[in-house]
Amino acid sequence: MTNAIPKKMRALVLDRYEADLVDAIGGLKLVERPVPSPGRGEVLVRVEAAPCNPSDLLLLQGRYGTLKTLPATPGWEGAGRVAASGGGWIARYLLGKRVACGVPGDRDGTWAEYVVAGAGECIPLRRDVPMEQAASLIVNPLTAVGLLETARSRGHRAAVQTAAASQLGRMLVAMARESRYPLLNVVRREDQVELLQSLGAEHVLNSSEEDFTERLRDACDRLRATIAFEAVAGEMTGTLLHCMPPGSMVYVYGALSHEACANIHPVDLIFREKTVAGFFLGSWLRRRGPLGTLRLARRVQRMLADGRIATAIQRRLTLEQAVEGLLRYVDRMTDGKVLICPHKRSSDLVVGKSAAS
Amino acid sequence: MTNAIPKKMRALVLDRYEADLVDAIGGLKLVERPVPSPGRGEVLVRVEAAPCNPSDLLLLQGRYGTLKTLPATPGWEGAGRVAASGGGWIARYLLGKRVACGVPGDRDGTWAEYVVAGAGECIPLRRDVPMEQAASLIVNPLTAVGLLETARSRGHRAAVQTAAASQLGRMLVAMARESRYPLLNVVRREDQVELLQSLGAEHVLNSSEEDFTERLRDACDRLRATIAFEAVAGEMTGTLLHCMPPGSMVYVYGALSHEACANIHPVDLIFREKTVAGFFLGSWLRRRGPLGTLRLARRVQRMLADGRIATAIQRRLTLEQAVEGLLRYVDRMTDGKVLICPHKRSSDLVVGKSAAS
Repeated sequence: MTNAIPKKMRALVLDRYEADLVDAIGGLKLVERPVPSPGRGEVLVRVEAAPCNPSDLLLLQGRYGTLKTLPATPGWEGAGRVAASGGGWIARYLLGKRVACGVPGDRDGTWAEYVVAGAGECIPLRRDVPMEQAASLIVNPLTAVGLLETARSRGHRAAVQTAAASQLGRMLVAMARESRYPLLNVVRREDQVELLQSLGAEHVLNSSEEDFTERLRDACDRLRATIAFEAVAGEMTGTLLHCMPPGSMVYVYGALSHEACANIHPVDLIFREKTVAGFFLGSWLRRRGPLGTLRLARRVQRMLADGRIATAIQRRLTLEQAVEGLLRYVDRMTDGKVLICPHKRSSDLVVGKSAAS
Repeated sequence: MTNAIPKKMRALVLDRYEADLVDAIGGLKLVERPVPSPGRGEVLVRVEAAPCNPSDLLLLQGRYGTLKTLPATPGWEGAGRVAASGGGWIARYLLGKRVACGVPGDRDGTWAEYVVAGAGECIPLRRDVPMEQAASLIVNPLTAVGLLETARSRGHRAAVQTAAASQLGRMLVAMARESRYPLLNVVRREDQVELLQSLGAEHVLNSSEEDFTERLRDACDRLRATIAFEAVAGEMTGTLLHCMPPGSMVYVYGALSHEACANIHPVDLIFREKTVAGFFLGSWLRRRGPLGTLRLARRVQRMLADGRIATAIQRRLTLEQAVEGLLRYVDRMTDGKVLICPHKRSSDLVVGKSAAS
């Protein structure tokens, strides 16, 4: 079933979790390992590009919701070509195809030349979706779709989002705008306000401004925003909840502040009937089932293909450059994602040259 | 329609909210005021006894969910005899009857010789329910019923409660025991562990013990406790959430720590699908409707009448003694409630003598 697959591959491997992010990234080792064999219902994907998402950084720190038995290769998602099938009709159908794949759970991930993925975790790619965009097809775009669908299906007329300048935040801006769903965007710097406005965001607030809470309260009232997509955590969760109208729900889906949610006023919970809950893409997709997920992925691919949404990429990294590149990345995440391109050499990755097929 | 009602009455009046509890209580003034007139659908209740609940203290501090336009008389509930009807068939029916009444919203409350209550907010009393127990018929017993019914109706097999040694906590112990609903009780002192065990509580944990979180986690797992009744707030809310199984809900119904809920881990919200919400008796009763509320009140009265539940009373206060008595009360709330008895004189309230009819 295999097709010119080497016996050995290079992979980034994590030996131990480190709460300190710099130590955690520094702990990644580039090692040679056997290329894994897909089992029945699985495929072997030759990874072309894999992003570093905030959820990957949380894994390195041992703070993610599901951890891996170490040593293990990180990387929750990526894109590439199916190089081998382990058997089963879906896996065989995928052989040779370009796919995006998600690799959740306690398994080796995408930061390696090859990864084993469940056939049901692979999304066959349209020809007009570039591999680099496909690498981030699952985590961010599907979370954005999931959050907006949750808001709509629960009857909320408008939503607030924090960390609106993130890649996911920008996708939410684009998707909300396209479907004319009112979205109030919270960022923490003035240049991010301008960035979002240039992307067509109508309502943008800067949380660093002095009168932020009053403006947030006014805007939520005016737009009747009763659901929040919260990716910051810490005090922000409570501030949001406090400024939103009675009956509001805050869905936490990230924790960019690396802090526990705080500042949640009992009065808001008890008398204003507000709720704090979480949103996890994995659970949401499970409820949609595999066909529902494929349908959503098709919608996302159309949007990626005609440029309605896009992941900004600040830098491509070879496996050798990964540690240094990730360390630089964490200081300026707003500039875009970094992509790990396991089969590239540094000579391929000169500035301005696209690194993926 | 009136029957020997004076023109003037004595009432405790609050001039301004004070965040500091001692200042807040100290700000209560005993004044003479006109006896109010009930409107249509309302009755005038001659107050025999009115408790001080934690929600009353929150009002004094301006921290409660609904505030009053000051100056106003506090007191969310009480019991007495209906002295006048403002018209309407329910109000007329209540005339002369012994009632418990709740006085929510922006109106003068029960810490006065007379109070105006909506006829629908009055619960006619069984003859065998003493006035002193009736004074606390609504807030605590109905909240306990509401919490347990919420747990059952949502399919939770067992519950945790914090502040289990409070009056409300002890009622939950009695009600849960009677209906064989497994309840894990959290207190913060060793003498409270013994107190609860003496009341028949099977599962009691002391949150001041070093291994509290491990024991809480084990007990929640063993009992399959997936709902919490939380009256402490602060870090306790997050600790509870963290120790409970996936899918758990924490219902905050009080804030005895006077702190905002904190320490809520995004991982619990996102990956463990846990939720933090509030429970407010007013909203819960509104959903049951007036007949549903009366039915519940009848159940509670049966329990009070045959002593299956009871409110411990540590002291009765005349209106003159109220400020000094409340100041002493807040330092030892576990000893029982204080009752304000507006028509009593200090000579009536000697130790060991029951103050109510």
